[in-house]
Amino acid sequence: MTRSVYRFGNGVAEGNAAMKDLLGGKGANLAEMSVAGLPVPPGFTISTEVCRSVLAQGGTLSRELLEEIQAALAAVEAELGAKFGDPEKPLLVSVRSGAAVSMPGMMDTVLNLGMNDEVAAGLAARTKRDRFAWDAYRRFLEMFANVVMNVSRAPFEHAMEKLKRERGAQRDADLTAEDLRELVGRFKETYKTHAGHDFPTNPREQLERAIVAVFRSWNSDRAIKYREVQRITGLLGTAVTVQSMVFGNMGESSGTGVCFTRNPSDGTRELYGEYLVDAQGEDVVAGTRTPEPIATLREKMPAIYEELAALTQKLEGHFRNMQDIEFTVQEGRLFILQTRHGKRTGRAAVKIAVDLVAEGLVTQEEAVVNLVEPAHLDQLLHPYFADESGYRKAGRVLAKGLAASPGAAMGKLVFTAEDAEAWRARGEKVVLARVETSPEDVAGMHAAEGVLTSRGGMTSHAAVVARGWGKPCVAGCHDVEIDHVAKVLRANGKTLAEGDWLSLNGTTGEVIEGECLLTDARVSEHMLAFMLWVDAARTIGVRTNADTPKDAAVARSFGAEGIGLCRTEHMFFEEGRILTMRRMILSDDVRTRTATLSELLPFQRDDFAGIFRAMDGFPVTIRLLDPPLHEFLPAEPKQQEEVAKAMGMSVERVRMRIAALHEQNPMLGHRGCRLGVTHPEITVMQSRAILEAACIASREGKRVLPEIMVPLVGTVREFSHQKALVEQTAEAVFQEQGLRVEYLVGTMIEVPRAALTADDIAKEAQFFSFGTNDLTQLTLGFSRDDVATFLPRYLALGIYAEDPFKTLDQHGVGQLVKLASERGRSVRENLKLGICGEHGGDPKSVAFCVGLGLDYVSCSPFRVPIARLAAAQAALKQRGIREKAGES
Amino acid sequence: MTRSVYRFGNGVAEGNAAMKDLLGGKGANLAEMSVAGLPVPPGFTISTEVCRSVLAQGGTLSRELLEEIQAALAAVEAELGAKFGDPEKPLLVSVRSGAAVSMPGMMDTVLNLGMNDEVAAGLAARTKRDRFAWDAYRRFLEMFANVVMNVSRAPFEHAMEKLKRERGAQRDADLTAEDLRELVGRFKETYKTHAGHDFPTNPREQLERAIVAVFRSWNSDRAIKYREVQRITGLLGTAVTVQSMVFGNMGESSGTGVCFTRNPSDGTRELYGEYLVDAQGEDVVAGTRTPEPIATLREKMPAIYEELAALTQKLEGHFRNMQDIEFTVQEGRLFILQTRHGKRTGRAAVKIAVDLVAEGLVTQEEAVVNLVEPAHLDQLLHPYFADESGYRKAGRVLAKGLAASPGAAMGKLVFTAEDAEAWRARGEKVVLARVETSPEDVAGMHAAEGVLTSRGGMTSHAAVVARGWGKPCVAGCHDVEIDHVAKVLRANGKTLAEGDWLSLNGTTGEVIEGECLLTDARVSEHMLAFMLWVDAARTIGVRTNADTPKDAAVARSFGAEGIGLCRTEHMFFEEGRILTMRRMILSDDVRTRTATLSELLPFQRDDFAGIFRAMDGFPVTIRLLDPPLHEFLPAEPKQQEEVAKAMGMSVERVRMRIAALHEQNPMLGHRGCRLGVTHPEITVMQSRAILEAACIASREGKRVLPEIMVPLVGTVREFSHQKALVEQTAEAVFQEQGLRVEYLVGTMIEVPRAALTADDIAKEAQFFSFGTNDLTQLTLGFSRDDVATFLPRYLALGIYAEDPFKTLDQHGVGQLVKLASERGRSVRENLKLGICGEHGGDPKSVAFCVGLGLDYVSCSPFRVPIARLAAAQAALKQRGIREKAGES
Repeated sequence: MTRSVYRFGNGVAEGNAAMKDLLGGKGANLAEMSVAGLPVPPGFTISTEVCRSVLAQGGTLSRELLEEIQAALAAVEAELGAKFGDPEKPLLVSVRSGAAVSMPGMMDTVLNLGMNDEVAAGLAARTKRDRFAWDAYRRFLEMFANVVMNVSRAPFEHAMEKLKRERGAQRDADLTAEDLRELVGRFKETYKTHAGHDFPTNPREQLERAIVAVFRSWNSDRAIKYREVQRITGLLGTAVTVQSMVFGNMGESSGTGVCFTRNPSDGTRELYGEYLVDAQGEDVVAGTRTPEPIATLREKMPAIYEELAALTQKLEGHFRNMQDIEFTVQEGRLFILQTRHGKRTGRAAVKIAVDLVAEGLVTQEEAVVNLVEPAHLDQLLHPYFADESGYRKAGRVLAKGLAASPGAAMGKLVFTAEDAEAWRARGEKVVLARVETSPEDVAGMHAAEGVLTSRGGMTSHAAVVARGWGKPCVAGCHDVEIDHVAKVLRANGKTLAEGDWLSLNGTTGEVIEGECLLTDARVSEHMLAFMLWVDAARTIGVRTNADTPKDAAVARSFGAEGIGLCRTEHMFFEEGRILTMRRMILSDDVRTRTATLSELLPFQRDDFAGIFRAMDGFPVTIRLLDPPLHEFLPAEPKQQEEVAKAMGMSVERVRMRIAALHEQNPMLGHRGCRLGVTHPEITVMQSRAILEAACIASREGKRVLPEIMVPLVGTVREFSHQKALVEQTAEAVFQEQGLRVEYLVGTMIEVPRAALTADDIAKEAQFFSFGTNDLTQLTLGFSRDDVATFLPRYLALGIYAEDPFKTLDQHGVGQLVKLASERGRSVRENLKLGICGEHGGDPKSVAFCVGLGLDYVSCSPFRVPIARLAAAQAALKQRGIREKAGES
Repeated sequence: MTRSVYRFGNGVAEGNAAMKDLLGGKGANLAEMSVAGLPVPPGFTISTEVCRSVLAQGGTLSRELLEEIQAALAAVEAELGAKFGDPEKPLLVSVRSGAAVSMPGMMDTVLNLGMNDEVAAGLAARTKRDRFAWDAYRRFLEMFANVVMNVSRAPFEHAMEKLKRERGAQRDADLTAEDLRELVGRFKETYKTHAGHDFPTNPREQLERAIVAVFRSWNSDRAIKYREVQRITGLLGTAVTVQSMVFGNMGESSGTGVCFTRNPSDGTRELYGEYLVDAQGEDVVAGTRTPEPIATLREKMPAIYEELAALTQKLEGHFRNMQDIEFTVQEGRLFILQTRHGKRTGRAAVKIAVDLVAEGLVTQEEAVVNLVEPAHLDQLLHPYFADESGYRKAGRVLAKGLAASPGAAMGKLVFTAEDAEAWRARGEKVVLARVETSPEDVAGMHAAEGVLTSRGGMTSHAAVVARGWGKPCVAGCHDVEIDHVAKVLRANGKTLAEGDWLSLNGTTGEVIEGECLLTDARVSEHMLAFMLWVDAARTIGVRTNADTPKDAAVARSFGAEGIGLCRTEHMFFEEGRILTMRRMILSDDVRTRTATLSELLPFQRDDFAGIFRAMDGFPVTIRLLDPPLHEFLPAEPKQQEEVAKAMGMSVERVRMRIAALHEQNPMLGHRGCRLGVTHPEITVMQSRAILEAACIASREGKRVLPEIMVPLVGTVREFSHQKALVEQTAEAVFQEQGLRVEYLVGTMIEVPRAALTADDIAKEAQFFSFGTNDLTQLTLGFSRDDVATFLPRYLALGIYAEDPFKTLDQHGVGQLVKLASERGRSVRENLKLGICGEHGGDPKSVAFCVGLGLDYVSCSPFRVPIARLAAAQAALKQRGIREKAGES
């Protein structure tokens, strides 16, 4: 006969953490705590195997099973010196469902089971808390009716409201013990009316009904639907866990608390937590009483404190991670209710990881895979507001938008890029607020401490550019109304004018009125040590997306191993260049265009030379001009007049040319290599600038590895056309310079057709870089600038589980990435593969890239450490170094 | 010993049409003509097998080969009573390359080979045409130098120009025979200078050099590149064909002509053609002499005429198709130089097909597959200008744009949709000219005879809508400047004002000033008979894209077997509806939207009921609302004011709402099922209208087969969300009506992600309809509204071989169609598959769909007959009924 019931508790452990399939997540966890020698309130778990047979028998519990339950219950009674249904020494239990994976739709928890009139009276007498006992009873009645018998909560709430009206009570707490006793009587009536039978006062019957209800909930419509949607198959059923209730409110020798094994804020090794004498956890949650520091316990019950200290040490050792522990003391006896890995700040996470390795508790690899999350590093790299709860409590939060680029910023409010530059030039700190930003605003965005937009998503222009710089940004903040003509910002009933102080929390998306205390980011010794282990574990390269020598240098300091995407278009927006660029665009003939481009050549060459110097010894992937030409032309009439004047053209002609360049869907228009095909002189100029710069840096003794990238290729013929231009130019440059440098010519894979025909393209291209931003836009048919109107609804409905511009849509877009990788390498074995979309800095997406065997990921400088960690974790998991089983 | 040389000519035929691999296309064709008993000028072909061995031997001709050539040449001499290199009875030959497939990059033709000073003098004496003889000689010199020795033509042209200056000659024809004789001398000098040796005067040497040059050209860079790009593999090499020259300019008993075996204009069975006495083909091409009707030949040489008549009859019988024949009479002897299937009008094509079947020459299936092209039917379905050359000669063509929708139209010029409606209402015929059109213009477009736009491509709004109605449209006509404010049109230096007459030739893309004579389309008896054979052969359904009961009826008359795409959005633009629609869009709350939608319900229901009646017994696929809502709102300030007034809203509020709905890339924005998810009330209203209409029509005794189509699905969860709404609504409607109708719920596959996850989607969807317009836009990353700036260049460079919006890009987009079909059917065997993009009416794309095993194609009403024919031809070819070998 196989066992159906598994006991756990003080000294008993018939299961362990590895038995999730049989005991469910909760049951296995309680067993593991017992294995670790923890005094958990005793109880037992009925296995998932029983679920199937109970359901097959139409929901009846077999005699054998009832006997096993009886025996387990008796053991609990013996252990606690209490008895189920006995008013003198009442034993109450909780009943919970639990499958191997967490699953909404199944039966919820029932607490305080085993209660009836006599038991309630006994409990009141024993705890000397009448009100507590009757309140627990009426709660149990409502919970049992609702959870077990599927009766709506509404009639119970009505009964309660009615009683409150009768008693003139404002709050629940105004009801006396006597009132609650009255309420219990009324609840029993309500129960009978809706459940169709008398409330079962026999605790045994309560327990059996609850167990059957848990098993039945396995096949509820919601649970079945959930398994279907989540594609959960192969499970036996749910387990049922029955556990004794313990009470911290049985007098001065009782209490309840929460503690961490280390300080979750800075990682210091110390017992850190709170304790409340003669109370239950509910009292803390309800806010009726305020807990005191854990030291209270040391004073009041030194023996218990010592026991707790020893236990928590043991727990940390067992789970090899800092623990967050809930405990209760019942009449001088300590029980551990729950332990789990403790939440911590980034600073604490890194320190704890390094300390646990030093203490010999975990290996370096385990520390990398288990103890620091990518989000922890993100925290460490950005300044933050020291007192978030302060400004929240003060009601200074004006609105909440998308947390588009992390970190905190504050400054005086300005509404145009020009103002941002001008104010900055005279030493003011500014925050730039725009409806949305465009490439014209880049200089102003750079001058600002942070950027706020009222439109656009996580990958809108503002968000992408700000993240690239590590500058805080709150994007798509619809609740803020920005009027750049009147220069006012309205939100939450308030109006802020130009020059008013504004703070942005890019980590939370909050827009805050006034100033806030700002704490700077810094790289600790612990972090440096930890990142060495990270890099040792990593199997995939991490590059950065950087467009300037300065960004390149920042990224190198964060550990970037090259540039995966250098966008050349930003170079054209600088003062002294943009006018030349505009003249090039506005001219009708190739001759003028070529002449104008040759004026731009020295600028680009200098930029590239600076980047090559900063990336000495590392590859630099440079993308040829990508955006549609109209992005370089001014949209405002005033600026159009200025351009016309500066160029000696009529305003009319400038406007007509701008109108002619207008596109219905610029994303799908004349851009990328389509520009290079129709305007080969641009490709020639850029190739020349890159390769001349490479020769210059090479002559200075730098090791240059330029990789020239053709954007938006859809067919190999486009690529070949551009490649021929690059190669011809290269030969000419090398002749002139009397020097050759090695270089590669490759392409971005960002058009679905390119992925589908990757085998054709790889015959010509020496590398692929997946431009997953555009690939996502095209594969899903979503414009990242326009998703705000429907994507939030989609996420709320679960149509997409995650924002596909943040985390790569592996099931859809991922298929194309995989297919292109395979087809590409099928014709060119050593094809270099990388990813340079926003996803290159997203941990889940990085893990996907590791799985595909890409050569590198590339992300904005401030995400480089995060990508390094995510890549290391994925590599370690691939090697089978996983998180220890048994954590919550 | 295998044979290397294959003779052909009068009575000799050592090869035939099936031997293309060995003799090349030309050689096999000449052999076939000989097989057919035609008096072709005799000659011989050196096989492709020889090519390889000659190249392997470094370009030398073996003794055995030279002997075979000598023998074949001797036979030609005997046949013609002439001798190679003999001044008395000179034999001249042509030398040509020819592989199994036509291939640019290989050696061109050399004519008049065998010429030297003596032969030229002899030819002059014999023909009594000094000038002809020396001209032929100097042409041969230049051709030989250029084609065989690879000398540029430039020095020869310079020598000629110099002589003309010396002689004061304006034109080549002003040079005398003596001058040309002088030129021959100078050409020989030029030859020596550039080829590095004396011109070979020995005809035998000329021949050998030419043969080797042909073989060598097989491995020229251009030819190799061409084979690479076109993926031509498995060929042995090129063949060489040597054929005797014949001359029609040897006096009154000689001549040259061209004739058709049937009248190519109307198909009448008669010898139809032209003849010119004492002349060569060149004389006709150069325009120096005008040919006379073929009857001339009957008068002057009745015996030759009879021989020709008999031969052409025989030829038609042999090739089982109307033939276009070139012939030459040399001194009373008839030679056939070439025969090929004759080009013909659509009217002639259908009549000839029907006649040839009646005459027992071809089977019905052969007639379908070989004798009528889809383009022929297109001609027959549209009115046309009776005298195209007339308006061209008169210089009335103002500009040429894209031939976006075939047919001819004329009317008075108007510049706004409102004007078009107003003028039409008072009985004027109008042509509407716009920079581009939008859904607001639909009523005006409908009122116009034809539509002209200066922007947009073959699948721009104007083009798609016009084709849907069979209304002529010239789109993307960049050379026309349209000023709708001043109401003038400028082109080709002329300015037309509102009310001026304008004609559009939608078949050629021409925009013509003034009026033209218009001939109506009509369906002939022949056509009806022919289409019966077409449908008998067809294996795939042909449906139509139609949005109104009227269009549905037209399409039925063209043979449509259901509606593959009924767009519901046009229904909202009609008078009395658009304002309600706008109110719905501009309202903020669901309640108002739902109320407003219920006002629109009766309109939609009536439309659907009309369509169901028209399509009695055939399926009707109705797409739920697809375009972004801003398309329904007016762009012009004046109209915005009107809307505000009509709705009792402030203009400011209307404008703000329109601005809020603005999208960067509407193609990738809030449209398709994304609307249905965020505004479920729209889906509910439309489902209700469809199903109530179905109940109404069903109660009238019609057989209704509604197929409700969810647009722009990217994930199965979007589809399930919409399907649930449809099903709930259906149940409610059926309850209310006391009647059930069968219906399907399916989706468009137009987002790449949908194709990639088709197996998921097919679990829920009952049919797929490939929306290849959007699928092409997304897979290639091309906005069809914005391709005009680069696609023409792409087509010119061969980056795409064809406009991917016209002919499906099989190599890219086709992969997704195939993959989605396979994955879809892998989970739902009977999944109904169709295509409803513009490609559904394109013959090559239809053939692709037949190959994939789709259930149907759907196209605009006027393309239904074309799609039927294309589908039948593809099915017959699949069954192995191919075009007869041997045609040119």
